[in-house]
Amino acid sequence: MYDYQYLFNFTQTIFEKMGLSVGEARQAADVLMRAELRNISTHGLVRLPEYVRLWQTNRITVTPEFTVVHETPSTALVDGGKGLGLVTAPKAMHLAIEKAKTAGTGWVAVRNSYHFGIAGYYAMKALEHDMIGIAMTNANPLVAPTLGKSGMLGTNPIAVAVPAGEEPPFVADFATSAVSRGKVDVFESRGEAAPEGLLQDGEGNLVTDPSVLRKGGALRTLGGDVAHGGHKGFCLTAIVDIFTAVFSGANFGPTVVPTLGYVKDKAGAEDRGIGHFFGAMRIDAFQTADEFKAGMDEWIRTFRRAEPVAGQQRVIIPGDPEREAEALHRKEGIRLGLKTLEGLKKLSGMFGVPFE
Amino acid sequence: MYDYQYLFNFTQTIFEKMGLSVGEARQAADVLMRAELRNISTHGLVRLPEYVRLWQTNRITVTPEFTVVHETPSTALVDGGKGLGLVTAPKAMHLAIEKAKTAGTGWVAVRNSYHFGIAGYYAMKALEHDMIGIAMTNANPLVAPTLGKSGMLGTNPIAVAVPAGEEPPFVADFATSAVSRGKVDVFESRGEAAPEGLLQDGEGNLVTDPSVLRKGGALRTLGGDVAHGGHKGFCLTAIVDIFTAVFSGANFGPTVVPTLGYVKDKAGAEDRGIGHFFGAMRIDAFQTADEFKAGMDEWIRTFRRAEPVAGQQRVIIPGDPEREAEALHRKEGIRLGLKTLEGLKKLSGMFGVPFE
Repeated sequence: MYDYQYLFNFTQTIFEKMGLSVGEARQAADVLMRAELRNISTHGLVRLPEYVRLWQTNRITVTPEFTVVHETPSTALVDGGKGLGLVTAPKAMHLAIEKAKTAGTGWVAVRNSYHFGIAGYYAMKALEHDMIGIAMTNANPLVAPTLGKSGMLGTNPIAVAVPAGEEPPFVADFATSAVSRGKVDVFESRGEAAPEGLLQDGEGNLVTDPSVLRKGGALRTLGGDVAHGGHKGFCLTAIVDIFTAVFSGANFGPTVVPTLGYVKDKAGAEDRGIGHFFGAMRIDAFQTADEFKAGMDEWIRTFRRAEPVAGQQRVIIPGDPEREAEALHRKEGIRLGLKTLEGLKKLSGMFGVPFE
Repeated sequence: MYDYQYLFNFTQTIFEKMGLSVGEARQAADVLMRAELRNISTHGLVRLPEYVRLWQTNRITVTPEFTVVHETPSTALVDGGKGLGLVTAPKAMHLAIEKAKTAGTGWVAVRNSYHFGIAGYYAMKALEHDMIGIAMTNANPLVAPTLGKSGMLGTNPIAVAVPAGEEPPFVADFATSAVSRGKVDVFESRGEAAPEGLLQDGEGNLVTDPSVLRKGGALRTLGGDVAHGGHKGFCLTAIVDIFTAVFSGANFGPTVVPTLGYVKDKAGAEDRGIGHFFGAMRIDAFQTADEFKAGMDEWIRTFRRAEPVAGQQRVIIPGDPEREAEALHRKEGIRLGLKTLEGLKKLSGMFGVPFE
């Protein structure tokens, strides 16, 4: 078990060694550590070596310019200047929140950015301001459109955080593919087959082999095949791609320049980075804040009281398991996976930063 | 085959006989007829008798007040005054579009409304103004939350319409359940079993009997079980319920007073109607309109060119099949199902409006 603050300091120091300012390194570490706390370790420290590689290969710069290219009272387009998403995205979300203070809502599209960690981090930033937060991003083309042969879309997550009154907030944060790449990696590392209906091979045939992504296969959209609503999942993934990349002018769908070694660069397109989309809505934009909070408390309690099917403890309110994990990990420490440990030890040697 | 204009006139006349003004009757007929044209006949004229029944049982009024209760530069809350959604929703969408003209985006939540037809109708209204349109609604509690025993959420559709330049628009319009109630009705009327994974009985066990909804069963969320991402579908359905009903103060989830005879009124709650949520975003809110249109054309063409799996003609761009159906039906007429025909003939007798 590792102490939260020990891992935070190590991570911040690595980002500082890459050349980020102390404040930006702390910000970037905060996003990754929040993923560890919330049991979304697929987006935590296991990714630190990937960020270092993006820097080593000059895909990102550590002193990017953050430029507001265009704006209206409730919207803005930001050019991230090829910076880390971990640094650019918090600023963009902050801008959405500032817009919402005067316009009621704020919406910010970002281009020329890179992987931003967990979408939920940014959506939850709005909660402190009594606002609903929304965050989306596109990503490496691993998801096949319905009836399509190959991966053309990212796992394109959506996060929505909604404050309540006495209840803790509702926090949804999910990849719009049937399963996330991180979970497929877990099946593979355990030597397990994936459930039916989530993966397809290079010809579009359903398979359960989790190594198929490295062999030209693809993830299915949420829903899987047409009979089970997979075309709805395609709509959802497409909407995220359009909001994040077409709104902003970032690389969309298959033109995203891959950051994963095994994904072929299909388009040879100019690298305009990936795109993000952020939203903030004041809770008093529609009713009074008190009415909103009372309504949201009632919503959460109603579903928490729902009768579960036999053999299950409860109906899970989105955000509850992650919040419970966060409380536990802050107290008892964080367990790191083998791959994560190996990565951190390698970085320790590379940068001369002690890690035990 | 029925002529489009003949059916439109009949429908408008029925709404006029209910007491709607000529303009509002035409508006209501336009929404239902658009569903017929676009091959979404589950939301077309088959619903006309349901609207008449809502009026006969005093659930709706035909001379509702449309009240803006609260607003900010980019948002508004509307009380629909217990009017038909077919009449209230077009006005609310118009308000979102007007807000977007000055604020860049416009967002309107509605309470005290009833079934509004197809969500896509409202989202597409934004296209004429070079805006992206969004529409959502909640509905009768038929969908079980993940791990829950009974239907507590509506099929809660989301529609998103995005204009392009030379290409026709992208129009996604889908129920966030694994399958819509209308499709389940179709399985039942054909005497077919539903595919595995879409329906559960009153204990939460998976079943394929399409009559299960009338026997205490429920629809599954998009994704089905947890292994296939059903909890993501729950998040999505919940987000629509919160945006439409908690934002507005309408009845949410299981407190929605059912309009279907076979759905039990679970809550005995005060009837504050169902809720809708509408959004409009100027296409020049983030980049110039020309850049946006060029980007959207490129997006659509890229996915239209995608290689399909063996045995399939093409990857389908959301909105393409409905647009093709609309062109055909305007030219060649509309075929009505048996249940729809019976309903219209009954209304013909009830109101003394000829229908042949």
